Amino acid sequence: MIDKLRQEVCDLHAELIRWGLVTWTSGNVSARVPGEDLLVIKPSGVGYHELTPQNMVICDLDGKLVEGEHAPSSDTEAHAYVYRHMPHVGGVVHTHSPYATAWAARGEPIPCSITAMADEFGGDIPVGPFALIGSDAIGRGIVETLTGHPSPAVLMLQHGPFTIGPTAKAAVKAAVMCEDVARTMHYARQLGTVDRLPEQAVASLHDRYQNVYGQPQGGQRSTS
Amino acid sequence: MIDKLRQEVCDLHAELIRWGLVTWTSGNVSARVPGEDLLVIKPSGVGYHELTPQNMVICDLDGKLVEGEHAPSSDTEAHAYVYRHMPHVGGVVHTHSPYATAWAARGEPIPCSITAMADEFGGDIPVGPFALIGSDAIGRGIVETLTGHPSPAVLMLQHGPFTIGPTAKAAVKAAVMCEDVARTMHYARQLGTVDRLPEQAVASLHDRYQNVYGQPQGGQRSTS
Amino acid sequence: MIDKLRQEVCDLHAELIRWGLVTWTSGNVSARVPGEDLLVIKPSGVGYHELTPQNMVICDLDGKLVEGEHAPSSDTEAHAYVYRHMPHVGGVVHTHSPYATAWAARGEPIPCSITAMADEFGGDIPVGPFALIGSDAIGRGIVETLTGHPSPAVLMLQHGPFTIGPTAKAAVKAAVMCEDVARTMHYARQLGTVDRLPEQAVASLHDRYQNVYGQPQGGQRSTS
Amino acid sequence: MIDKLRQEVCDLHAELIRWGLVTWTSGNVSARVPGEDLLVIKPSGVGYHELTPQNMVICDLDGKLVEGEHAPSSDTEAHAYVYRHMPHVGGVVHTHSPYATAWAARGEPIPCSITAMADEFGGDIPVGPFALIGSDAIGRGIVETLTGHPSPAVLMLQHGPFTIGPTAKAAVKAAVMCEDVARTMHYARQLGTVDRLPEQAVASLHDRYQNVYGQPQGGQRSTS
Repeated sequence: MIDKLRQEVCDLHAELIRWGLVTWTSGNVSARVPGEDLLVIKPSGVGYHELTPQNMVICDLDGKLVEGEHAPSSDTEAHAYVYRHMPHVGGVVHTHSPYATAWAARGEPIPCSITAMADEFGGDIPVGPFALIGSDAIGRGIVETLTGHPSPAVLMLQHGPFTIGPTAKAAVKAAVMCEDVARTMHYARQLGTVDRLPEQAVASLHDRYQNVYGQPQGGQRSTS
Repeated sequence: MIDKLRQEVCDLHAELIRWGLVTWTSGNVSARVPGEDLLVIKPSGVGYHELTPQNMVICDLDGKLVEGEHAPSSDTEAHAYVYRHMPHVGGVVHTHSPYATAWAARGEPIPCSITAMADEFGGDIPVGPFALIGSDAIGRGIVETLTGHPSPAVLMLQHGPFTIGPTAKAAVKAAVMCEDVARTMHYARQLGTVDRLPEQAVASLHDRYQNVYGQPQGGQRSTS
Repeated sequence: MIDKLRQEVCDLHAELIRWGLVTWTSGNVSARVPGEDLLVIKPSGVGYHELTPQNMVICDLDGKLVEGEHAPSSDTEAHAYVYRHMPHVGGVVHTHSPYATAWAARGEPIPCSITAMADEFGGDIPVGPFALIGSDAIGRGIVETLTGHPSPAVLMLQHGPFTIGPTAKAAVKAAVMCEDVARTMHYARQLGTVDRLPEQAVASLHDRYQNVYGQPQGGQRSTS
Repeated sequence: MIDKLRQEVCDLHAELIRWGLVTWTSGNVSARVPGEDLLVIKPSGVGYHELTPQNMVICDLDGKLVEGEHAPSSDTEAHAYVYRHMPHVGGVVHTHSPYATAWAARGEPIPCSITAMADEFGGDIPVGPFALIGSDAIGRGIVETLTGHPSPAVLMLQHGPFTIGPTAKAAVKAAVMCEDVARTMHYARQLGTVDRLPEQAVASLHDRYQNVYGQPQGGQRSTS
């Protein structure tokens, strides 16, 4: 199981490059190891074309290194905090993707004005508090902002987006769509104002996208 | 014939990626099966690099699945409505391409201010009504907006562009050019105002592009 | 000689794609055939990945087809006019590259405010008149604007850039650099004002770039 | 050693293309040859796909050609000046990357408002004086601006960014991150105002990134 997750987490980092979300060594994807208090995450400061299933790092849910020859991502504490406090979360992604980070720099939620946002985020993408690396502060900010919120993405103030999902792939999808709608809404707002969609429409679109879109897979839809 | 269309529709999806029109699994291309009440379309929620001629889906013109192991695109009803009501249409494309969707978010038609717009669209690119997925509303909005209009593209309000054409390839070309002119006009408007081209010039350019540009092919020009 | 130019003109079209200057089948490169009243140019409406040395088209300097199975680019008349009236020009390029076309849409010259512009263009990039395709009007506008002007690029009003050079490669370089500085100056102007460089500095930079930059090649420098 | 540096400097130029920092033949990377008064640099006016370890040029620290069949980059004097006056610098990079050059065109420092800037630059990215090529002026401007400054990047007025580092790879990383934060801060500022991070937070982030991020390597961290 851990070998499969090493491969999956390694491969998902290529999606961050493919969709233009990361620069140099920034950004990271992690996955919870189901049934164990462990996570798989990117090594710190290693380039995207040097990532292999073997150099992925295994940590416990306090963020301490369990297995691997490399130091884990410097954001591991934040990922670990999320897994400890949100048991339904199976994957976490962090990037400094440019448009989402621009909204984060201003501390401005992305308003839910287009159907693609309603589909994936079920409303605005919210802003979380400013928090320094090196304590529980970032993890706590993510959990407090996203608990009870339909959005799988939070814009951490003057920092950048974190996304969550039932799987690492779903969290990567949320990161990709977060940048996509951050960009479209940036363009839209540059030349005028935009209304939010009516609440009723947002709820209807979100429900349909989560429950009808994609291919049926046992009891759950695959939308990613 | 259906096998040829499966291949063609599959291949055309690669153009949406090539020209930056789609993100993750969003966007879809369909083609009418000539002489039959059928269409070929992308499966729902399947990634672009997983598309094959085999997993394209065949539906009837009410959008009901006829052949294929996957559920059809969640936008199939809108495509089907267009084929039912616009008999000259052989292809339909839907994307959330970022610049076109930004104009759609504001509900602002793209003004015909550059010769490339006059060539392909013959005037402004119009805005269609806001409509929720899950009924005929989107298809009806497309047909009502584009009937009698020279433009093969419509910006559905707070949603994104739909394009039509005599073939699926022509509809893809319209989607690519729609994003191209949406982007150029966005840049133009960011730093000042732009005049529309005179009506006479638009008519002359549009006529020439539709009837002289490209290579002669029997009685019809190939401009795509 | 003509075979060598067919290959060269074909290969140079790939640079238009590489640097993001063209969309679908738009844009074209031509070269004068030295010592003959002929030019080599792209066929009309043919996709970039379908271009081969064989389907390049040979025309005379009135723009009439001399050799080739395809119709020549619909902009051939403009290229031909330039070759007839500017004997030092060996290559012409036309694109609708997005940032340059945005300046063209507003009819605003690009101000020479950064050293890269002084190097390549020796001053502002000027705007030429609005002119319809289908007569000498576009060619005449290019020649009248660029005659006696240091810039190898002109922004044709509400249309897009044309560039010239002693060779087709030099004209392609000018098209690539025109879009590059159009983009940088667009960004610069979005957040404030920019001063033009002093005339003395522009003259010094332009002279050095034309005469010292690059590798010595017989009596002429290679800067492209 | 020089052969290894020829290979390294050649390979690092590919990173300038990969991250979209350069156009046509612009931009250059150099490395100091440790223990010798020599540097390795790009040849002038040669295209990126034509660069090989063999056509890299060796110059002394006055910028004079020592070995190589090509003329060195026209920016060699500026690189050489930096190596003469900043003994801890092992690599220098110059580009006209579009967002950084836009800030340089306005003469506006990039404000340190996001954590990614604090990490890599330890504060604002400063502006250096306007200086013409062809004397010590550019080198002097770089050295005067960066001496005693935490930032490895300077925006030379109406020209573009220069970056330095202990190695050529570190200087390339600084150039890549400089464009990345120039872009994000450009987007952020387009739709509102942004506060600088508190000084205390900047110092803490910068210290941690320089001393904890990445993989331990003997006495020094690898963050590049």
